[in-house]
Amino acid sequence: MLSVNELALEIFDNLADLAEEFNCAYHELDNGARIVDCGVSVRGGYAAGRAFTEICMGGLGEVNFRNGEIKGIPMPFIDVNTDFPSISCLGAQKAGWTVKVGNYFAMGSGPARALSLKPKHTFEVIEYEDDYDCAVICLESDHLPNAEVMNKIAEECHVDVANVCAVVAPTASMVGSIQVAGRCVETAIYKLNELGFDTRKVIAAMGTAPVPPVRGAKLAMGVTNDATIYHGRISLTMNAPEIKDYLDKIPSNKSKGYGKPFNDIFKEAGYDFYKIDTSLFSPAEVTINELSSGAVYHVGAVNPDVVIKSFGYE
Amino acid sequence: MLSVNELALEIFDNLADLAEEFNCAYHELDNGARIVDCGVSVRGGYAAGRAFTEICMGGLGEVNFRNGEIKGIPMPFIDVNTDFPSISCLGAQKAGWTVKVGNYFAMGSGPARALSLKPKHTFEVIEYEDDYDCAVICLESDHLPNAEVMNKIAEECHVDVANVCAVVAPTASMVGSIQVAGRCVETAIYKLNELGFDTRKVIAAMGTAPVPPVRGAKLAMGVTNDATIYHGRISLTMNAPEIKDYLDKIPSNKSKGYGKPFNDIFKEAGYDFYKIDTSLFSPAEVTINELSSGAVYHVGAVNPDVVIKSFGYE
Amino acid sequence: MLSVNELALEIFDNLADLAEEFNCAYHELDNGARIVDCGVSVRGGYAAGRAFTEICMGGLGEVNFRNGEIKGIPMPFIDVNTDFPSISCLGAQKAGWTVKVGNYFAMGSGPARALSLKPKHTFEVIEYEDDYDCAVICLESDHLPNAEVMNKIAEECHVDVANVCAVVAPTASMVGSIQVAGRCVETAIYKLNELGFDTRKVIAAMGTAPVPPVRGAKLAMGVTNDATIYHGRISLTMNAPEIKDYLDKIPSNKSKGYGKPFNDIFKEAGYDFYKIDTSLFSPAEVTINELSSGAVYHVGAVNPDVVIKSFGYE
Repeated sequence: MLSVNELALEIFDNLADLAEEFNCAYHELDNGARIVDCGVSVRGGYAAGRAFTEICMGGLGEVNFRNGEIKGIPMPFIDVNTDFPSISCLGAQKAGWTVKVGNYFAMGSGPARALSLKPKHTFEVIEYEDDYDCAVICLESDHLPNAEVMNKIAEECHVDVANVCAVVAPTASMVGSIQVAGRCVETAIYKLNELGFDTRKVIAAMGTAPVPPVRGAKLAMGVTNDATIYHGRISLTMNAPEIKDYLDKIPSNKSKGYGKPFNDIFKEAGYDFYKIDTSLFSPAEVTINELSSGAVYHVGAVNPDVVIKSFGYE
Repeated sequence: MLSVNELALEIFDNLADLAEEFNCAYHELDNGARIVDCGVSVRGGYAAGRAFTEICMGGLGEVNFRNGEIKGIPMPFIDVNTDFPSISCLGAQKAGWTVKVGNYFAMGSGPARALSLKPKHTFEVIEYEDDYDCAVICLESDHLPNAEVMNKIAEECHVDVANVCAVVAPTASMVGSIQVAGRCVETAIYKLNELGFDTRKVIAAMGTAPVPPVRGAKLAMGVTNDATIYHGRISLTMNAPEIKDYLDKIPSNKSKGYGKPFNDIFKEAGYDFYKIDTSLFSPAEVTINELSSGAVYHVGAVNPDVVIKSFGYE
Repeated sequence: MLSVNELALEIFDNLADLAEEFNCAYHELDNGARIVDCGVSVRGGYAAGRAFTEICMGGLGEVNFRNGEIKGIPMPFIDVNTDFPSISCLGAQKAGWTVKVGNYFAMGSGPARALSLKPKHTFEVIEYEDDYDCAVICLESDHLPNAEVMNKIAEECHVDVANVCAVVAPTASMVGSIQVAGRCVETAIYKLNELGFDTRKVIAAMGTAPVPPVRGAKLAMGVTNDATIYHGRISLTMNAPEIKDYLDKIPSNKSKGYGKPFNDIFKEAGYDFYKIDTSLFSPAEVTINELSSGAVYHVGAVNPDVVIKSFGYE
C-alpha cells in the first residue's frame, strides 16, 4: 500500500531544502519538529502553492498552473489531477482535522490525517490507513505552530515529534488562495462521499478552478470557496453505474443559497455558519465517465458572473 | 544519433519501479522480458497514460494534461509537442507493427519498431534506424503478452528477450483513451508522409486533442479516433515551401464520410474497414509555419458537434 | 541571497549535456568558454526555447507550452510564472546589455547582467547584484560569439572566461520566437519600472502570450513584439496600494501608434526606431491583485485582429 506521508515527505524535504527559492522559510524547533512557513511571515508564491497542494494530496496529485480567463478577464487557473481520488482527496487533502492546542488554531489537512485518522469515519469508508514513521501536516492558519502544537500532532499521529513536518499558510495569502483552489477535485470527491457514494470507485479525477485573488482575512474564506463553488469544473472517471442516482445532488447549483458570493450568503445568515446549506460546498460543474456502461454525464454549470463579483472585478 | 529505445527505457524503468503509484502492475517473465500492465488487469490513469505516450514517442515528445471544454462541456485535453516529429511519430509512435503470435494479437507501436523496422518503407523514407540492445514496445491489446510473444518481439528486434520491455493497455481503458488522443500530432505527420511529403522537413510540432471517454470495447476505436479527426489541432513548423501543394489534402474534412462519428461511418460500411476512406485519419485543423518563406497556413476546422455526439454527451 | 547565475548554470549544464535532444549544438572554445547554439546553425525547438527562457530568467521562472487559439486559429502559447518578478525579469531577463565586440553584435540578456550590472541603474533600483564565479548570458544574434567576445563578457562579469556560458539564438528562429514571447511577464515588470514604480513590491507574476511564427529576419522583431503588445496577458500580485496611480499607463493600448502591427508602425516611422513611442512596449492586458487593500484591477485588452494580421494569417 502506498504511504501518503512517505510520498509527501519527499516534496516537503525539497521545499525545506530550497525554501528561499520558494519564498518560504524553514524552521526546526527545539523538539526537532520541522516547519515550512509558506505565507505567515513570508510571501510564498506559485511554486510554494503547488508544493503545498501536492503535499496536501499526499504526493498522489499533479498540480499545474495555466493562464485562463473568466468573462474576458485574464487570471491564473490551477489544474489538478489524481489517479487516487479517494486516498489523496479524502485520506489526505480534506480539511478534516481541527488543530486546537492552547491558543493555537488551524484547519489541519494533508497526509498526517491518515495517521491520526481524523475523522475516523472517513478512513473507515475509504478503507485506507497510512503506516509510516513520519507525519506531514498542512495547516491553514495565520500563525506558525509552536513546540507544544507539534508535540500534540506527533502524539495523535503516533510518531516521534522529530518526525513531524508542517507546512503553514493563512487563508488570506497567495499559497492560501492556491491551495484552496487546489481543492477543486477534493470538493467533488468530498460531496460524493457525503452523499453516501463509495468514492473508491472513482479511478481518476481531473479538475480546474481559477486561483482567487487575495482579498484580506475577512473575505478570504468566501472568495476562495467561490472559486470552486461557481467555477470548479471536474471530470471524473469511475466504475459505478449507481452514480446515476447521485447526479442531481452533485453540483453546487442544486443547493439553497446558490447564486450569490459566499460572503453575501454568510452575511445574510447573520455570520452563523450553521445556517448555511452545506450542500453549497460543491464544484460548479462535473462530467463523469462511467466505465462499466460507457456512459457519460454532465451536471451543473459555471457561474462566471458570481465569480467576477466575488473576486472584486465589478 | 539519438536512440529512441534508450530514451524510452528511462521512462519505462521509472514506470516499472513505481508501478503502484501509476496504478499499474509490473511483471517479469521467466525469460526475463519485462512488462508493465497499464490497463489490462489494472486501472491505470493520467500518469500512466502520459508515461505510455512518452514511451510511445521514443522519449522525444512532451505530454501534458489540461482542462478544456467543447461546446461548454468541460473535459481533459492532452497537449503534445516534439522537436523530432518524423523520428518520434513515424519512427516510434505510429502503430505500424501488427504483433500476432498464436492467439495473441496487439497493435504494436513505440521505439521497438525502429529496431524491427516495421514497416521497412517508413524507416527508409525518414532515414532513421535505432541501434540499441534494448527494445521498448507499446501494445494496444486486451491481453498481456506471454513469453512466446516477447520472444518473437526480441527476435524481430535482434535483442535478447531479457532486454525487451512492453507497456500494454486496451483501447477501451483510460490509458488507451489517453495514448490514442496522444497520437494527435502523429496523425498529422502520418498523413503528410502518406501524401508523399518529406516529414524530415518538419522541425517541430505541437498539438492537442480532447481525451475521449472510455465507452467500452465496441465503441473504443471510433471514439478515440474521433478525438483527433474532429478535434485534433496541430501546429507544425517546417522548412518546406512545397507544403503549399499538400495543404488541401491534410485535414480530415476533405475526406469522404467526414461529418459523422467514426462508428456511424463504420456501421454504414457494413463494418468493412477497407470500405472506409483512409484519408479520414487526419487531424481536424492544422496551422503551418514555413520558415524559408516566413509563410503561415491554416487548414481544416474542428467539429465540436460530432465530438460531443461521439463522446456520448447527447 | 539567491544567485541567478548559479540557478541558470544548472539549466545550462543540462542543455549542454543533452544538446542533441534539444536540437542544439554544444561548443567549447579554446579559452574554455562554453556555448550552446540554439538556432544559429541548428533547428532548436520547443524544449530549447523553454530552456533558453528559463536560463534567461535566472532559473527563477517556470515556462510551459499550451495549445490555444486566436480568432479560432490554433497556435501554441507560452505560460510563464515567477515568484521573483523584479530579480528574474529586470535582474536577468531584460535585454539590457548590448554586446558589441568588433563585428559581433548581440542583444544580451540573462543572469550575466547581474554580474556586469548592465545597466547599472536597473540593479540599483531593484537592489540586487549577483555574486558568483560563473556567468550565464543569453545572446539574441544571428551569429555565435568567438573567443574575443567571450573574453569581453568574462571581463565585464569579473569571472574567468572558462566560467562563461552562453546560449545563442537569432530573433528569426523557433527559439527566438519562444524566448521573446517568454518575455511577456518581463514586459509588464519592465513597463512598471520605467514608470517609476518599485517592482520589488510585485511578489508574483504569471502571464501568457502566443508563440509567434518565424517570418524571416526582416519581420522577426515586429512579429515577436506583437505577441506581447497585442496579446500578452499578465496577472500580477503585489503589495503596493500606489499601483492605482499607474494603472492607466501600463497597457499598450494607451500608447501612440497602438492598433497596427509593429512592422507597419516601424515602416511609417521611416524605420527610425527613435520615432516610435516606446510606451508601446507593454503587455496588452494586465490584472493586478493588491494585497494590502485586497483590491483587484483590470486594464487593457487583447487585440486579436492585429495579432492575426501580424502573424500572417490574413
